[in-house]
Amino acid sequence: MSIANTPKPPYYAVIFSSQHTKNKWEEYEEKSAKMVALAKESPGFLGVESVRDENGFGITSVYWEDKESIDIWRHNEEHNKVKKRGRSIWYEKYFLRIAKVEKDYGKI
Amino acid sequence: MSIANTPKPPYYAVIFSSQHTKNKWEEYEEKSAKMVALAKESPGFLGVESVRDENGFGITSVYWEDKESIDIWRHNEEHNKVKKRGRSIWYEKYFLRIAKVEKDYGKI
Repeated sequence: MSIANTPKPPYYAVIFSSQHTKNKWEEYEEKSAKMVALAKESPGFLGVESVRDENGFGITSVYWEDKESIDIWRHNEEHNKVKKRGRSIWYEKYFLRIAKVEKDYGKI
Repeated sequence: MSIANTPKPPYYAVIFSSQHTKNKWEEYEEKSAKMVALAKESPGFLGVESVRDENGFGITSVYWEDKESIDIWRHNEEHNKVKKRGRSIWYEKYFLRIAKVEKDYGKI
């Protein structure tokens, strides 16, 4: 994973922080990759950054054109199935924040 | 590191994504911990989540009450010294996004 090449603000970020149980890790990795591939095809997708450490704590930040794009992805049927599984099996704790990016800068 | 216990939105997130060079790692870890301790004392600080993987890719998300709190931290003298060092020694690439959290939910 590397830094997402997003356009000029404004755009939206969905910051997903989670503590993984480490149960069924292989299935998680497979579903996780599938969800990223699926999100990339969803309208308004701009990029994704994701990192998890050896203790199972992770942050995934997904960038979207606007709130409407987030809503479309939120209602994606396959995504919802995996979300339910994530909440019952993979995530001990999780927290999701929807935020409007107003400013950005860096060296990429 | 674990999920930050932030208040109800609105509040701000500073999402810092970076690719670490792995140069002078020990100094980095020391300065990084020092910066977190210093940020915690800065007015308007709400919480921090940080994760870096074995390849040196990391995301740190810091939460602040408002834009003014971010500005105060941005102008902190000691923070600025370490920032310069980070940009010249530790970060191959980095990108920073300032975003207004409009909505959040989860299980923590």
